[in-house]
This record gives sequence, C-alpha cells and structure tokens, in this order.
Amino acid sequence: MNNQSRGFMIALEGVDGSGKSGLARQLAETLRGDGHSVLATHEPGGTEAGTALRKLVLASNAYDWTPTAELLLMNASRRQHIDKVILPALAAGQIVICDRFVGSTIAYQGAGRGLADRTILDLHRLAIEDFWPDLTLVLDIDPETALNRSKARLESAKIDEGRFEALDLAFHRRVRQSFLDQAATLPAAYRVIDANRPPEIVAREAADHVRRLLVGEGAR
Amino acid sequence: MNNQSRGFMIALEGVDGSGKSGLARQLAETLRGDGHSVLATHEPGGTEAGTALRKLVLASNAYDWTPTAELLLMNASRRQHIDKVILPALAAGQIVICDRFVGSTIAYQGAGRGLADRTILDLHRLAIEDFWPDLTLVLDIDPETALNRSKARLESAKIDEGRFEALDLAFHRRVRQSFLDQAATLPAAYRVIDANRPPEIVAREAADHVRRLLVGEGAR
Repeated sequence: MNNQSRGFMIALEGVDGSGKSGLARQLAETLRGDGHSVLATHEPGGTEAGTALRKLVLASNAYDWTPTAELLLMNASRRQHIDKVILPALAAGQIVICDRFVGSTIAYQGAGRGLADRTILDLHRLAIEDFWPDLTLVLDIDPETALNRSKARLESAKIDEGRFEALDLAFHRRVRQSFLDQAATLPAAYRVIDANRPPEIVAREAADHVRRLLVGEGAR
Repeated sequence: MNNQSRGFMIALEGVDGSGKSGLARQLAETLRGDGHSVLATHEPGGTEAGTALRKLVLASNAYDWTPTAELLLMNASRRQHIDKVILPALAAGQIVICDRFVGSTIAYQGAGRGLADRTILDLHRLAIEDFWPDLTLVLDIDPETALNRSKARLESAKIDEGRFEALDLAFHRRVRQSFLDQAATLPAAYRVIDANRPPEIVAREAADHVRRLLVGEGAR
C-alpha cells in the first residue's frame, strides 16, 4: 500500500514528554497558514473503534495481554485508522499529522517489550500492507527530562494512563535508542529533531523541513 | 510452536447450529469417563481479555471493523488464549476441546468476508507461530437446517449476537464449503462428521475417532 495520492503524511515520534502533542498543534497551524488542508490525528486510537481498543490495551493490569497479542491489537487499531481516516484524507489531498505511528510500535513493542524487529516489520507488511508515512519526525530528548515532564503532566491532570506511562527510565532509554536506530536505518524518511530546545525552536525547525519536502513533492 | 506436550488438542468446527456446543459437552464427559483430564474452552473468547475483545468485534455495527482489522483482533484473542489457557493445559497433559479455532478464521474471515487464505495462513504463522490442533472435527450439516436451528436457539434465548449470526444462507454455504476444503487439504489432521444425524450418533462417532487417535498417541 503506497501513498499514491496528492496528500502527504507526517508521523511524530518520541518518548512521552518529548513534546509531540504541542508540535502537532503548532505544525498544523503553521501548515494551515501556508494554505494547506491539515488533518491531525493520533495513535493508538484515531477512530472510535481504535479508541475502544486502546482502553482494552491500557487495561493491561486486568487483562495481562501477552506481548504478541498486544502487537496484534496495535496493528488492528492501525489498520482501521488507515482505512477509515488516513487514506481518505490523503486521497483528498490533505496533509495528515499523526501523533505516533509504526515507529512507536517498533520502539515500544520491540525495544520496550522485547519483540523482534523482524516480527514487527513482517506483521507491518502483512497487516498494514507496508504503508509508511512520507516523513517521520523524531523528537529526541533526554529521557530523564521527558519522564519528569510526562509525570508532571499526568499528575496535574490527575490522569492514570496505566502501564505505558508507569515504566521506568531504563525503558525510556531503550525506546529513545530505537527511534534513533530507526532514523539511522531510514535516513531519507526520518528526521531527528533535538527536542531539548524551546518548543518554538523545535516547531520552526520541523516546519522548515516539512516545507522543503512539500516543495520537492510539488509536482505530485 | 508445536504441541510437544503430553496433552492432545481437539478443535470443533462447523457452521452455527451444527451442534458443536452439545458435542463439546458430550465429548468432554465421555473422555473424562475414560479417565482423561479435559479442559473445554471456546473461541472467540476463552480468556477474560478475549471475551472483552469479542464484545468489541460483535459491536461491529458501532465500530465497522474492516476485514483485516477484524482478522487481527481474532488473532490477538487467539494468541492470548493459547499462551494463557491452551498451552498450560496441554503441558499438564490435559485434553483440550476448543469450540472453534483457526478453521473458523479461515472459513469466516476467508470464505465469508473475502480475505485471501494466503493472508490468513501467513498471519497464523506469524501471530500464532503456526500452532495447530492435533485434530479438527468438522460437524458437517446442511446449511439450511443449521441456520434454522441457530435462529430458533437465538430467538428462544432472546440473544442478539450481532452480525455473525445475522448473515444469510449463501454465506453459510460458503463457510461450510471452506470447512470441507480445509479437511480435503489436511486429511490427516481433520475429520468430517455428518452432523445431520442425531446428536448421540454424532457424539459416538467423534468419541470413537478420538479414542483411536489417543491410542495411537499412547507413547507420547
């Protein structure tokens, strides 16, 4: 499955607390200001079905999903999201900004829970027909900083998001390294941005990079 | 993943209304009478997590799962069921009787919803590590008879199980044909039983066949 439409898909990746949600909002605003039609979405979730599924996965203390079962659930949610939301938007020529995508599966289910990259990529080929974003922006941040930000946010919002957020610093480090490894493996499709800097600097660098790519894609 | 344990796994397959649940009870009773320890289970479901997932799939009018997403959900539920319930029982030397298993996925998601057998089997290899029952018993029945039985049962119980039961006769015919095709492809692992006959005759034939196989497996 290739993006053969006029649209353009950007995935935002990074550990929790790296500033993805803020960047998604800022980037959408900037690109809309440039005259583009933008759809902002997120995973896991992104559809009503996916949101219901996300609750099942986060209720992991109750259900104790095995790593492979969890990987299959993530792929079910993603396939639904792609077919129902992302492909129609791309077909209509929109720019899609997605907070987390396959990169997070590689990082969290792979580096985080010990599933082989090979298994994850084979399943991506089979379940998702090897659909990839046009660009993946990795927000790279010191894991300790990110963990503290993330904790502060959850505490102030009195949210208990379950085990995804409850994992420790060593886990965050492995996840971060996975994102960097992915970017090193696929340099043409990934861009690493230093997210230790102020959000407005990060957003400007991201927007500049996206604009350069959109000019290059202009004929599409 | 092979069943290298001392246990023995039997899957019961057939269209709705073919008498699987009744046979599962009868077969369990007979085998227990023979001195075996028997675990009776079912799909979709079989675990608390799987049951929660089953509700999500059956709520298809609300969520409108795509065929591939539904296939992934079925495999997530199965993987959880195998790891948490089936493998431990087999490792303990039990006979596992499972009402529906991978044969139903091939029949319902494949022949029923139009997914390629190749996709379903590739996913089975990847997600389930190609685990197969030692024996699959197919209860073969005239689809019209089965549909009428199934409707009567649901009406008397005032159950609305959603679209799986609401599908038409042409669908039942395709599903039946898929079970027969599977048995023709894998004759050593499948056994087709004529389920148009009285339940006690069906149960006796099933028990006799299982007993012959268990004698053959005696050294395991």
